Amino acid sequence: MSEIRQNLVTKDWVVIATERAKRPEDFKKKEKLKETLPEYEKNCPFCPGNETAMSPEETLRIDRNGKWQVRLIPNKFPALSRIGERIRTVQGIKRQLTGVGLHEVVIETPLHNVTTALLPYKDVCDIINAYKMRYNQMLQDKRIEMIIIFKNHGEAAGTSLIHPHSQIVATPVVPSQVRERFNDAQQYFDENLECVYCRILSEELKEGNRIVTETKHFVAFIPYAALSPFHCWIYPKRHSSCFGDINDEEILDFALNLHTTLKKYYYGLDNPDFNYVIRSAPADLKDLDFFHWYLSIVPRLTKTAGFELGSGMFINASLPENDAKFLREAKIGS
Amino acid sequence: MSEIRQNLVTKDWVVIATERAKRPEDFKKKEKLKETLPEYEKNCPFCPGNETAMSPEETLRIDRNGKWQVRLIPNKFPALSRIGERIRTVQGIKRQLTGVGLHEVVIETPLHNVTTALLPYKDVCDIINAYKMRYNQMLQDKRIEMIIIFKNHGEAAGTSLIHPHSQIVATPVVPSQVRERFNDAQQYFDENLECVYCRILSEELKEGNRIVTETKHFVAFIPYAALSPFHCWIYPKRHSSCFGDINDEEILDFALNLHTTLKKYYYGLDNPDFNYVIRSAPADLKDLDFFHWYLSIVPRLTKTAGFELGSGMFINASLPENDAKFLREAKIGS
Repeated sequence: MSEIRQNLVTKDWVVIATERAKRPEDFKKKEKLKETLPEYEKNCPFCPGNETAMSPEETLRIDRNGKWQVRLIPNKFPALSRIGERIRTVQGIKRQLTGVGLHEVVIETPLHNVTTALLPYKDVCDIINAYKMRYNQMLQDKRIEMIIIFKNHGEAAGTSLIHPHSQIVATPVVPSQVRERFNDAQQYFDENLECVYCRILSEELKEGNRIVTETKHFVAFIPYAALSPFHCWIYPKRHSSCFGDINDEEILDFALNLHTTLKKYYYGLDNPDFNYVIRSAPADLKDLDFFHWYLSIVPRLTKTAGFELGSGMFINASLPENDAKFLREAKIGS
Repeated sequence: MSEIRQNLVTKDWVVIATERAKRPEDFKKKEKLKETLPEYEKNCPFCPGNETAMSPEETLRIDRNGKWQVRLIPNKFPALSRIGERIRTVQGIKRQLTGVGLHEVVIETPLHNVTTALLPYKDVCDIINAYKMRYNQMLQDKRIEMIIIFKNHGEAAGTSLIHPHSQIVATPVVPSQVRERFNDAQQYFDENLECVYCRILSEELKEGNRIVTETKHFVAFIPYAALSPFHCWIYPKRHSSCFGDINDEEILDFALNLHTTLKKYYYGLDNPDFNYVIRSAPADLKDLDFFHWYLSIVPRLTKTAGFELGSGMFINASLPENDAKFLREAKIGS
């Protein structure tokens, strides 16, 4: 019989449909990353040499040996306008807000044909460093209520550009989903005098069977009620509600944990399409006892359909404990 | 500049990204429905002749002229088990429930090679009738807390089976998403002494510019804060919280409205993949003043990516008013 589990953070109920269960190997992609792609592509707007001609002015840059290593530029087709005032209006039942905010692209490396798992470790450190720096700069913009850092890898995850990149969107409103989770976490704290995320982390470490990668300051694990196969969370061990507060030592360790975990996906599941996103507290709030930032990885191995759409429940055909074991044991190359 | 709109029912904030806007024509599919498919396919488990050999025992049937017109059968790979007790357990932070419930397939027609838009009107009436009958039967099962009727049309919507079918899943728990919307609707009623859905409907009828199809008892319209291009709601005009309470006259009119609306998609957008879902009140609750059942259509014309995943906000590159006009004016064949 299936089992229905509740995710304590999102409150989602997930049907763990063991009768439909697939073996982890069944989720492997058919084709490997095209190793034949060139390091440089002359029509790619993110490749070195095209900085001024094809891409808008940069907002942040990390250099190494006199050349750029990571660059941030405004998205060429931004969802939100950099310029303008935040104005909220209510007209009868219509609630509206001007579409101001920031929408930037993080060009993660000058190399066209790689992916995070294949980058040298120090390049991953630079990416995380760039995230942090730009996150904290954006916090200064008084119009901003929420900053979302995310990566779309592969077509199923919503990108068509091959050159490794991620995005940062800063919105002038706190999304309702975030507000709900926030209120739930606050209520949990009121009732239990502990952060729900800290509690989950300590339980996961005690049980151990859903852990994927543990490093000094971070833990990657498959949530008890993972919403889809190989859904993974990376939590900082130190309680902190804001990603921007990550310190230098933690940055190196976060990069190590993320890099190792993404290598496990790359080698274990043959370079699956995935999204990752950093979930941090709303911009105006600091040092919250009850909220905890983390990174969530969602591989795009299955499709959501009418049931998920209509209920908000998920059906996961993969047992979280098996997925974790598979990734824990995955060989990650040289 | 973009505009950010709030959906009053779901509380979702949607970025209407007019600078990325496409013309409605740009969403048209490249290929038409393969007209060359046969009416009957000998390996299809839903085709007449394969009833006993390939598909499990039926739970409901509507006959016409001595042959079946609509059949309901248990899903061969059910997410939930028909047999067993509902047992809820809490063990520390782990909340769990036995995976009992119903998961059935509605075979909508004996014909293998059609879709709802191409069926005769009276066949659509039979489908709605079957939905209602089975919905009310399932309500009798004391283990059931929520019944979700939905259709996945096309691969992008999560189906690979061509023979026209929809599904019904009856779950032993109220999904958290439903509970949240439910609480919000109740609060709106407390504050305004009116059903929020009734209010939206009356505003939409007054404005008129987002209406797609109006029939005697139903209105199809693009929501003010539609979460994706051509996202559409069909509301009953009579306030009713439970789909199972639809009366005979309303069934005929609901079928007419749905049929007409789906034809507009089929001919206007060249048979797009889509999901539809009937959103009704939780099973144990009857005659609620503050809740209103409806059907939601979500064409799968775009992909959700890391931003949506990380924020719960959506970016819609299409203006709801334009989408509605396009569908309102779409020619729907003979």
